[in-house]
Amino acid sequence: MPSQPLRSFASDNYAGTAPEILEALATCNGGGAKPYGNDDLSLTVTARLAEVFECDLEVLLVPTGTAANALALSLLTPPWGAVLCHPSSHINTDECGAPEFFTNGAKLLTLGDGADAKLDAALVQGAAQCKIGDVHAVQPSCVSITQATEVGSIYTPSEVAEIGAACRAAGLKLHMDGARFANALVSLGCAPAEVTWKAGVDVLSFGTVKNGTLNADAVVLFDKSLAAEAGFRRKRAGHLTSKMRFVSAQMLAYLENDRWLAHARHANAMAKRLEDGLKTVAGVEMTGAPTRSNILFVKLAPHICAGLLAEGFAFYHDRWAPGVVRLVTSFATPEADVDAFVAAAKRLAG
Amino acid sequence: MPSQPLRSFASDNYAGTAPEILEALATCNGGGAKPYGNDDLSLTVTARLAEVFECDLEVLLVPTGTAANALALSLLTPPWGAVLCHPSSHINTDECGAPEFFTNGAKLLTLGDGADAKLDAALVQGAAQCKIGDVHAVQPSCVSITQATEVGSIYTPSEVAEIGAACRAAGLKLHMDGARFANALVSLGCAPAEVTWKAGVDVLSFGTVKNGTLNADAVVLFDKSLAAEAGFRRKRAGHLTSKMRFVSAQMLAYLENDRWLAHARHANAMAKRLEDGLKTVAGVEMTGAPTRSNILFVKLAPHICAGLLAEGFAFYHDRWAPGVVRLVTSFATPEADVDAFVAAAKRLAG
Amino acid sequence: MPSQPLRSFASDNYAGTAPEILEALATCNGGGAKPYGNDDLSLTVTARLAEVFECDLEVLLVPTGTAANALALSLLTPPWGAVLCHPSSHINTDECGAPEFFTNGAKLLTLGDGADAKLDAALVQGAAQCKIGDVHAVQPSCVSITQATEVGSIYTPSEVAEIGAACRAAGLKLHMDGARFANALVSLGCAPAEVTWKAGVDVLSFGTVKNGTLNADAVVLFDKSLAAEAGFRRKRAGHLTSKMRFVSAQMLAYLENDRWLAHARHANAMAKRLEDGLKTVAGVEMTGAPTRSNILFVKLAPHICAGLLAEGFAFYHDRWAPGVVRLVTSFATPEADVDAFVAAAKRLAG
Amino acid sequence: MPSQPLRSFASDNYAGTAPEILEALATCNGGGAKPYGNDDLSLTVTARLAEVFECDLEVLLVPTGTAANALALSLLTPPWGAVLCHPSSHINTDECGAPEFFTNGAKLLTLGDGADAKLDAALVQGAAQCKIGDVHAVQPSCVSITQATEVGSIYTPSEVAEIGAACRAAGLKLHMDGARFANALVSLGCAPAEVTWKAGVDVLSFGTVKNGTLNADAVVLFDKSLAAEAGFRRKRAGHLTSKMRFVSAQMLAYLENDRWLAHARHANAMAKRLEDGLKTVAGVEMTGAPTRSNILFVKLAPHICAGLLAEGFAFYHDRWAPGVVRLVTSFATPEADVDAFVAAAKRLAG
Repeated sequence: MPSQPLRSFASDNYAGTAPEILEALATCNGGGAKPYGNDDLSLTVTARLAEVFECDLEVLLVPTGTAANALALSLLTPPWGAVLCHPSSHINTDECGAPEFFTNGAKLLTLGDGADAKLDAALVQGAAQCKIGDVHAVQPSCVSITQATEVGSIYTPSEVAEIGAACRAAGLKLHMDGARFANALVSLGCAPAEVTWKAGVDVLSFGTVKNGTLNADAVVLFDKSLAAEAGFRRKRAGHLTSKMRFVSAQMLAYLENDRWLAHARHANAMAKRLEDGLKTVAGVEMTGAPTRSNILFVKLAPHICAGLLAEGFAFYHDRWAPGVVRLVTSFATPEADVDAFVAAAKRLAG
Repeated sequence: MPSQPLRSFASDNYAGTAPEILEALATCNGGGAKPYGNDDLSLTVTARLAEVFECDLEVLLVPTGTAANALALSLLTPPWGAVLCHPSSHINTDECGAPEFFTNGAKLLTLGDGADAKLDAALVQGAAQCKIGDVHAVQPSCVSITQATEVGSIYTPSEVAEIGAACRAAGLKLHMDGARFANALVSLGCAPAEVTWKAGVDVLSFGTVKNGTLNADAVVLFDKSLAAEAGFRRKRAGHLTSKMRFVSAQMLAYLENDRWLAHARHANAMAKRLEDGLKTVAGVEMTGAPTRSNILFVKLAPHICAGLLAEGFAFYHDRWAPGVVRLVTSFATPEADVDAFVAAAKRLAG
Repeated sequence: MPSQPLRSFASDNYAGTAPEILEALATCNGGGAKPYGNDDLSLTVTARLAEVFECDLEVLLVPTGTAANALALSLLTPPWGAVLCHPSSHINTDECGAPEFFTNGAKLLTLGDGADAKLDAALVQGAAQCKIGDVHAVQPSCVSITQATEVGSIYTPSEVAEIGAACRAAGLKLHMDGARFANALVSLGCAPAEVTWKAGVDVLSFGTVKNGTLNADAVVLFDKSLAAEAGFRRKRAGHLTSKMRFVSAQMLAYLENDRWLAHARHANAMAKRLEDGLKTVAGVEMTGAPTRSNILFVKLAPHICAGLLAEGFAFYHDRWAPGVVRLVTSFATPEADVDAFVAAAKRLAG
Repeated sequence: MPSQPLRSFASDNYAGTAPEILEALATCNGGGAKPYGNDDLSLTVTARLAEVFECDLEVLLVPTGTAANALALSLLTPPWGAVLCHPSSHINTDECGAPEFFTNGAKLLTLGDGADAKLDAALVQGAAQCKIGDVHAVQPSCVSITQATEVGSIYTPSEVAEIGAACRAAGLKLHMDGARFANALVSLGCAPAEVTWKAGVDVLSFGTVKNGTLNADAVVLFDKSLAAEAGFRRKRAGHLTSKMRFVSAQMLAYLENDRWLAHARHANAMAKRLEDGLKTVAGVEMTGAPTRSNILFVKLAPHICAGLLAEGFAFYHDRWAPGVVRLVTSFATPEADVDAFVAAAKRLAG
């Protein structure tokens, strides 16, 4: 164990597990239960998410976000298909080709290059018309968007709906990578349905790990016809947990009393607090758009960056551009860490 | 939740999680930690398993036994290779083609048909000489054996060593599916090394879920040259857990103070108690070999089988032959459940 | 070039190309033409085969029988599916896992063990009911039968129809590997339709190479809904020939004036002549059923076998059982070679 | 058949087969021969290409360029690898994901955007250093360059050597897509070795179809250690032709007396003649670099473009930019067609 606690703004997966999640594990541990999701608890998860999303749906719990995304995409494209996505999408850059593995070799075609990491309907329309029916070319089959995006930007319901309409017009399916879905949702202040199925999303990777669970991500199928295939694909990929009740219990506890939204609100608030604090520091340049979720990009003078690292703050830097630092907050980020970070930056800025 | 507790002999994955495992989760939850296995706790797991196995090795934690097996096999065979295994091996019958998926289409060639679900060196030697170098045929690349087997039988160290020698002579690698490795080990009373790398095993699926953890299975690489490839394959398959410390903590707690062996001893003892009890019941026929691990097959008269099910005992029946029942015990099986089962059988037998 | 001509009974793919096929290549060589099957000649192939099979259909030309089979199966099973076939089927034993590659890891489940290499409806029914909907098990998706089989036996139209009905009842598709389809057809004396789509075959691998062409095999789709997918799969596998007119020309010449049937009749007649001749030789034991196509199995005394090889006759031996020899004739087998073989056997038998 | 001959500048695969190739097919057709490349003729092909390339090597004949490229790449990258290539490379745009299929899901990472469709050493160096050893990212494994490129540009031996050196320094393999290798070679006037293995190429797709054969492309392995794997991969993909002598005969006839170079010289000369002729036509704008191989891009006034199409000239247009036309010549392009095209353009230009 580290002698001093890690004050991390590196990623929301540096956080631990929310207390209520661990309690839920303990609670569900009495006696035996049917495995593979046939226990009493697991059998209620779908209904619970149907309430949350206000529609009929199917759910498959999986242990990681990579599994959720790759499994979702494998339902939406044949091996000779193309997944349209942004160049900086997580599925394209950070999953070691998991989508290609699960889809048996489909191709990720990247569209756009905006710093905000977002697609729009025009980009989809342009790509969707390309070489349709031409056997020499992979065939656009689905679109994948990330909500909130990898840089913390957010699609409004109408932006998603425009993309959804473009997909429908072109016969494409729409996937949403919701690794930070809760952060987007509380920022938008809308209902989950507004920004998903009502806007044309067919399959959602409903991430919860970054927002407080241990290992309870989900593939949410608004198109229920995909459920049978999804079940076989999940098992075949080794993602059907035998002691499923311990995953289901997490999901239920996560959703109970809107805790998931409270967690996300806290994370977003901490990012805002960080932004507000850093704005006042000379030698810190605010880059990009104002923070709307739990990710913030700032440009630090080299000695400030080095100083903060030396003081034990963790964050990624110099990956995007020289001096650019990414700061990510989570449900577990203490206000004190934010304030300490700002204070240290101020001190270092002299 | 069921109004009456489930008295299960259906499978060891009906069990919950051992208390020390849940405690370990709570203990490791303080503050932030590096994700993906770079936390302080995770960095000790390999060393800990190296102690247990008395050798240098590499470890990859994965959330399910299917993932462990399929990932292991993908390291040991090219897509045009054949995995030699028993027809009733779990990889062949119960993983929905996960080995085929992870290996990109390698073929499982089944050998032998013994009721004890075991291969032997002669079977391996015969198959290994088949069509080597012939481009029209898949090429034998590795052997996979299950320890304890799907029917509860056990390979002795010398049996494994003979298979290992046959593998080495033929240029094949040897995989051991150790979903119930602990149960085999305490039955044999030998050191982990004796029945694995010293006997020629290259890769072990080190199962712990059936013996008490929540989701902490492992691929143990005695051939460390496979580690780099294994890391990419694990990530690509969506099996690299971000909050890895919560998996590592389970593994460490599982191994601490030889708890894993105590768990397995209990499971085996419960199977023996069940066997001893049922031997005395008219209308119960002991089939196959005497119980050596935690699985028992018996033949029940139809009214006894039906009566036990009606009383809330859970078990699989009539899958192997009419009237044949499989009974599986676990670390969590209460002695009282065993005794209640025997008493009910006696009563039903009239 | 060999100083003495090869007198081969090893396989029908030892034969050269029929003269009319080479002529067709020369004839179609004038000037330019659209590639990839869009030339005038290629555009008539589907209509021509529709005449032959008396139904609407789609055709994809591919250069090898392995490609035809693997492509066909990839249309009939998902990756988590099972292909039910005979253990000695070519797809199972001689294609280096091509079906597994093209299907992205589906499993070949072998049924039956008859020496005649045939499946029947009862075998299909039994296997088709196994673990349907169970996510732990690969799902029976199609049946593949070989016509004529690998040992020269033949399915009658009613036998195929029974299997076809069993498939339909169980929701399975039916594939026929017709590498030696013409040999079966002339032996049966029935119309192509009788033993294919009218009997429930969905996709036929229509082999022509063994019966006289250079490289013009075909996937014939009686279920036309598979055509679009098949086109992408063919291209993606590298099997879409650019100068397609040279393949189409072969197919058209092959079918013209029923030459394909004449070729097959010759091959079958040569096998019969060989059988009749060898029956009279002491030291030659006729094994199995009487020859019905162009494959014959006999048991030779060792000195006869060795003597024939020494005299330059080519054939496979001792693969099936000690002393057992497989003799295959083709469209190009000279009567003189047959007579020489019999004469040599007689002489060697003393 | 079309009533008027097709005067095609659309692609070199519109051409027929060179007469000596068809003669070679007829010549090798006498009697039987061992299949799958074990005939006497096939056994000389490797030695013949070793002469041409002045080094020890291994060769695998395959029926299409797509197969050659995809098979080659599958030898040079693991499934979690990245193939570095130009965005307009044929493997990236025109093979329906065949490289992804054969490599089991490797990723094509595109570099550069030059109109000349060429990579350079600096691009390779930049990409090769990216995220090495990071399990979240696909790992750069090989580079693929096209010679001559898709737009007719050519890598000099020193340009290839610089890329080769960059590959070697970064541990990457180097593939050359030589669909139009002969056209590049005669333009450069160098020996085949100079621009391949001496410059660091590990595997060459040696295209011959576009330059006169029917279906005899080849994968040339300068790294012979890849041969065993390549043999299994070829068979498994359905690309091992049974009557291989008919492919080998084409390759030998193609190379005999340097016919292949003569063919390519003719094609290049026809492109130059076309360029020279069109330069004199008002309303035709020469775009890009001067023609160096057999591909030419020009910009035509709309009425000229339409007029030429109406007169039966075939070519692709408006794919690259409005008004831009691609003209491709081949070994079979008649001088008269070139002159007719120029004359028609002049006439239409008024």
